[in-house]
Amino acid sequence: MLCKNLTVSPEGQLSFAGVKVDKALLAAFGSPLYLMDEGRIREKCAVYREAMKEAFGKDSFPIYASKACCFKEMYRIIGSEGLGADVVSAGEIATARAAGFDMEKVFYHGNSKSDEELRFALEAGVGCIVVDGREELAALERLAREANKKQKILLRITPGIDPHTFAEVATGQVDSKFGEAVETGQAARFVEAALEATKRGAVELVGFHCHVGSQVHDADVFIRSAEKMLTFIADMKEAWGYEPAILDLGGGYGVRYTEADPDFDLAQSIREIGRSLKALCREKGQTLPAVILEPGRSLVADAGLTLYTVNCTKRIPGYKNYVAVDGGMGDNPRFALYESPYTLVMPERMNEPCTTVYDVVGKFCESGDVIQPGVSLPDTIRRGDLIATLTTGAYNYSMASHYNRVPKLPVILIRDGACRVAVKRETLADLYAFDV
Amino acid sequence: MLCKNLTVSPEGQLSFAGVKVDKALLAAFGSPLYLMDEGRIREKCAVYREAMKEAFGKDSFPIYASKACCFKEMYRIIGSEGLGADVVSAGEIATARAAGFDMEKVFYHGNSKSDEELRFALEAGVGCIVVDGREELAALERLAREANKKQKILLRITPGIDPHTFAEVATGQVDSKFGEAVETGQAARFVEAALEATKRGAVELVGFHCHVGSQVHDADVFIRSAEKMLTFIADMKEAWGYEPAILDLGGGYGVRYTEADPDFDLAQSIREIGRSLKALCREKGQTLPAVILEPGRSLVADAGLTLYTVNCTKRIPGYKNYVAVDGGMGDNPRFALYESPYTLVMPERMNEPCTTVYDVVGKFCESGDVIQPGVSLPDTIRRGDLIATLTTGAYNYSMASHYNRVPKLPVILIRDGACRVAVKRETLADLYAFDV
Repeated sequence: MLCKNLTVSPEGQLSFAGVKVDKALLAAFGSPLYLMDEGRIREKCAVYREAMKEAFGKDSFPIYASKACCFKEMYRIIGSEGLGADVVSAGEIATARAAGFDMEKVFYHGNSKSDEELRFALEAGVGCIVVDGREELAALERLAREANKKQKILLRITPGIDPHTFAEVATGQVDSKFGEAVETGQAARFVEAALEATKRGAVELVGFHCHVGSQVHDADVFIRSAEKMLTFIADMKEAWGYEPAILDLGGGYGVRYTEADPDFDLAQSIREIGRSLKALCREKGQTLPAVILEPGRSLVADAGLTLYTVNCTKRIPGYKNYVAVDGGMGDNPRFALYESPYTLVMPERMNEPCTTVYDVVGKFCESGDVIQPGVSLPDTIRRGDLIATLTTGAYNYSMASHYNRVPKLPVILIRDGACRVAVKRETLADLYAFDV
Repeated sequence: MLCKNLTVSPEGQLSFAGVKVDKALLAAFGSPLYLMDEGRIREKCAVYREAMKEAFGKDSFPIYASKACCFKEMYRIIGSEGLGADVVSAGEIATARAAGFDMEKVFYHGNSKSDEELRFALEAGVGCIVVDGREELAALERLAREANKKQKILLRITPGIDPHTFAEVATGQVDSKFGEAVETGQAARFVEAALEATKRGAVELVGFHCHVGSQVHDADVFIRSAEKMLTFIADMKEAWGYEPAILDLGGGYGVRYTEADPDFDLAQSIREIGRSLKALCREKGQTLPAVILEPGRSLVADAGLTLYTVNCTKRIPGYKNYVAVDGGMGDNPRFALYESPYTLVMPERMNEPCTTVYDVVGKFCESGDVIQPGVSLPDTIRRGDLIATLTTGAYNYSMASHYNRVPKLPVILIRDGACRVAVKRETLADLYAFDV
């Protein structure tokens, strides 16, 4: 199976995190729903935490990229595992705060922060703001002074790395809406401006941040971007005598959506980055700053599963077969957005031969509402049967919409074989609660 | 300009529906926001209502495709204009009911309806359920019998028309998740099953529905699909002696997103369909059933405008320029989903020369978060300036997500130059209201 939290009984019943994925679960919590495996999230937290200490030294640590999946219980889980939080909006800050998360460990990212959001972040006391460019730096300095704060900041630097992944999620190349580019000299002027602002006292430059892409499966892209960043750090030392305390290398590790994705050893890959960075620093006579990584997808994706009920099957002779479920692009827009691959199964009939190919589609009134095309499933599938999409822990709940006025699904957390509701299901009345 | 509800003062100030699109508006309602022109919606309702009576006879009428933009005030507006409502979920039914909409005039569509949703629709007393296939027909008959109802139904038929538009929104071809196809003989068997069910008494077949596509600008595709449907109707009369009271030709008329889109005469196009259908019926000795059209986009798209504040501008020499606003794919995912074209302007500086090309991007932490690439705007644009996206009345608010935990924008309705809140802005606390 894709992930070790998936097991199949001799009778062909799928269990996820030790819980049977069956109609009894839907009878208890309704259909469709998201399941999340708390144990798997904690295990991944520990891998990052321990491997990073070993690879980069005791001051290095992971911060969870909340945008992958954000709700109060997530902050409690990652907080209790000692992780910080990467947030990208006032809404994520507010959620972390409502969950009692340590604000000192919050890093506030984003390419487009309003005065109102920056004020909110200052007031909430976030540990660090990742400043995206010089216009934002000027605004933040002004607002921090007004708030009588000395705000720690990282600068988002664009190292100019092509991560060989999708254009939509490739963010380290020079032409990016994020950060200031090394190649054009804009990053150096950004550092100069931040050092001047630091002297004036309302902000304090503590280091640099970069992010190279998404769904990467080896250390190489991190090593290449770190190499560029270490050269940039050396240049900044020479130019301004500045040495950063923190080098934030962003996120990007992937997971297995299908059997075609490689099953790599995360801890080993992190140690490989560490060995390369230490060798580079030795070679150049540099000190390695504390390293931050920002796992999102790799921390939560395979801790998630979406369970649907089939409403309709359709077999069009000479054309195609369809299975339509009771969810779709409203709860998982990733095929509609990126043609993302997913593995789908019939969780109650895992041993039945999958003899027929179907497009598994959603209930939304749009032909583009496809969960996954070309899925092999048993010929016997009918209305009322169950379908599970695996590896939906990242960018499913967090990207959910109310398209077609369909309520958002609940998130059911599983720990030690017990289920609890982490996010409640919306009711029909909730859908028009804001309508006048 | 794209639409007559847009005017520009000699000083270069844009007005929309007679209201200045400026910082004062944002000071009153916050940024960003959706504006909607109630007058324009009512005008389009009248065009459909009157042109359809003239074209198809007094029993023909438009029903509004709610999925384009659904909130309580929308149902009140279209209800007061005499339109019915095309709904696609229990959530849309619930919203219409909460707005006091006449349930008899509700047509419930969708390819994947659960027992729970069908029960809700029966209980709410919707006028007509558009049944998508034989599995759903069997379920509905059982549930209607349980509820002691005689439910009027239309059957969704796939006429096999390629609308020459996007694959994602092309729904009339044979290979579709929607309906039963004429070509394969499945539609005929679907009619047979519905007539048998009608005899048993829990459902009553009243006609046929088809839908051929989206953003079409002339009568041709409607005429071609109607021709196929009239042939199908003739075949059904011959086979089962059945004549439908209603022929629902679906939606599909487009609007002008950019100056490149044709400015066609909607009423004239509807009358052209009418003339063709009447001629076809005369030729074949058929009676034309009452015709239903389902305008969504064409009723509300150019009645909408989204107003943003610029948070960041970025000029990368040798690469590209960026303008980042305080919204993005959370409030308008259409470029991310379909690369949809839009017209963007600086509403307070309409007379300034647009000398520089920018990608206008959003605030969401994703490179794919683009509102529109390659937009010509003044070189002087900076943080704090305003940007308006035109023609956002359809599939913007209705497709909005909480990605990055960003609150949904309010909808401000304008009538006779006065603004009122139709949908309230979400607060940060609303974002975690469902979190345990």
